[in-house]
Amino acid sequence: MILNDKTPHGGDIYTNKVLLDFSANVNPFGMPEKVRLAAEAAAGQSFVYPDPYCGKLREKLSNKERVPADNILCGNGAAELIYSFAYTLAKDKPALIVSPTFGEYRTALNAAGVKTEDHILNEQNGFELDDGLLEKEMTQYGALFICTPNNPTGKNVSPGLLLKIAETGVRMFVDMCFLDMTDSPEMYDTQELLRTHRNVLILKAFTKSFAIPGLRLGYAMCCDNELLNNMAGKAPCWNVSLPAQEAGCAALDCMEWLDKTVKTVSKERKRLAGELSSIGIKVFPGEADFLLLYSEKDLCSRLLEYGILVRDCSDFTGLKKGFLRIAVRRPEENDRLLSTIKDIIDQDHA
Amino acid sequence: MILNDKTPHGGDIYTNKVLLDFSANVNPFGMPEKVRLAAEAAAGQSFVYPDPYCGKLREKLSNKERVPADNILCGNGAAELIYSFAYTLAKDKPALIVSPTFGEYRTALNAAGVKTEDHILNEQNGFELDDGLLEKEMTQYGALFICTPNNPTGKNVSPGLLLKIAETGVRMFVDMCFLDMTDSPEMYDTQELLRTHRNVLILKAFTKSFAIPGLRLGYAMCCDNELLNNMAGKAPCWNVSLPAQEAGCAALDCMEWLDKTVKTVSKERKRLAGELSSIGIKVFPGEADFLLLYSEKDLCSRLLEYGILVRDCSDFTGLKKGFLRIAVRRPEENDRLLSTIKDIIDQDHA
Repeated sequence: MILNDKTPHGGDIYTNKVLLDFSANVNPFGMPEKVRLAAEAAAGQSFVYPDPYCGKLREKLSNKERVPADNILCGNGAAELIYSFAYTLAKDKPALIVSPTFGEYRTALNAAGVKTEDHILNEQNGFELDDGLLEKEMTQYGALFICTPNNPTGKNVSPGLLLKIAETGVRMFVDMCFLDMTDSPEMYDTQELLRTHRNVLILKAFTKSFAIPGLRLGYAMCCDNELLNNMAGKAPCWNVSLPAQEAGCAALDCMEWLDKTVKTVSKERKRLAGELSSIGIKVFPGEADFLLLYSEKDLCSRLLEYGILVRDCSDFTGLKKGFLRIAVRRPEENDRLLSTIKDIIDQDHA
Repeated sequence: MILNDKTPHGGDIYTNKVLLDFSANVNPFGMPEKVRLAAEAAAGQSFVYPDPYCGKLREKLSNKERVPADNILCGNGAAELIYSFAYTLAKDKPALIVSPTFGEYRTALNAAGVKTEDHILNEQNGFELDDGLLEKEMTQYGALFICTPNNPTGKNVSPGLLLKIAETGVRMFVDMCFLDMTDSPEMYDTQELLRTHRNVLILKAFTKSFAIPGLRLGYAMCCDNELLNNMAGKAPCWNVSLPAQEAGCAALDCMEWLDKTVKTVSKERKRLAGELSSIGIKVFPGEADFLLLYSEKDLCSRLLEYGILVRDCSDFTGLKKGFLRIAVRRPEENDRLLSTIKDIIDQDHA
């Protein structure tokens, strides 16, 4: 269909009739008040151009991430930075994607004319990335895409393994967009990893943590300035809107709010995992604000009959029909999801 | 400088100390109240993803432009659509740019690895595009970039000539972002031009007319659906933010406001042109909400001493030191620009 041929994703409340959206993995507590006020004020003041270099935001990010501002590039959502990175790659080598994972890596690489190969994670191994990856000859790849915690499995790559992969020298695109939604965002020493490995780029976003997917704001960190400059040139001028820049600055003053909400999300994730397992749904124990499930029942379409949207994961490379991803939402919303799934199961048994 | 290597443009109020910005060509009456309210409300509701297909906005645009919604593609500012278009071009043929003009065409083509050539407009001819362009063998070019009214000259391409160029079959990228700010936006029969020429793409924006440069919203119209689909694939998912989509929808209900403000801008443009000419500044009579000027005095830096920012045009291909562009602003602001320029001239005579 014209203009509608992008990869399907969660969060599509426009073509579905949705009362409760469990398909998009954004912080279920919505955006902090301070972020909302900053975004609204900036929207009303958008009769001026945004700063094309995101100067103020990059300075604040530099403080948060303890990475020099010159090693940070902001984008119109993390998605844009995936494209900008893909456009910098030479076309003579394929990129390796650790799959199943977020579909935009492949879509962006396709757009840039870069071939892709997959390193398929093993379901029997709980989709955990292990040393097996290192058996591959990395010099044959122009880049390696790793998502940690991985979407849709929620699995973290162990810091030791990440370092071992970085040591191979392969250009690494490490998507940590969900890291701040886990119990241990400090598990990676990112600034040390970046400082000692110019081949590593880390992607992060405000979208999930601060619930601003509608504003579009992500950032890349890398100590290879030539690469960042090259990426900057692949995106248009003024690509990050004024509301996004101002919301981002405000969000960086809300780290306590983030910690508090993540604690609740973590508790709810464990509760959801336990209750879903107890009613016979296979749960893959992830670390982020979502869970990968497997069920032989057609839960996606049956939940939609109740106005509950979840992410059908059958289109992920390395997954199959029956896999679905649910966001962890607020306790009362999770209750509703659980009771609806129980109803569906009861109907089948009746 | 890292991440700061983009083409200079107007509107940079971040690195300059500016009291009055005459460098950005946005509607001097700011955004309509209705647009501001819509943008603010959408910013506050941006805890959901935007519609990746801009469905509602494209339907409204279809009504305004009398072009099928399937022939419209929205972008994160018109600038993004220039990049998306450039990324679709084959690299074996250069693109031809009618210059001097907006710098982002060349920047985008460079990013896409497409070589550029220039068709330089003649200053003696008032930078008017004429039949001379048709002497070029168009099949040698992968695309032709024309801006009408042209930035920074303000000159319109005659509709007859535009049609003649379209008849050559060359892939045309026609930037009409300033057309709605002229006295005669209906001078081109755009829907007929598009319907009968699949090789023509027309670019328009909300940025200038509705003064929302901070939100980023542009659109491309073309009857070659394969091209539009291809362009859609070159940009990331969710590229148009929720505030931009909602502001755009609200703006399309403000056409009377636009007409009214354009009438004032037109009157002021003529007044500014007359007064500046009378004090010895060379004025190129443009049709849009800005004027190209030439002066041997270093007006750009001298006006900045008064906190007035104008666009130094010495970096445009085909122009030289001494050229500058001023936006047409509100009457009292234009008065202040005029009196400041008179002061500068008087100082030199003292």
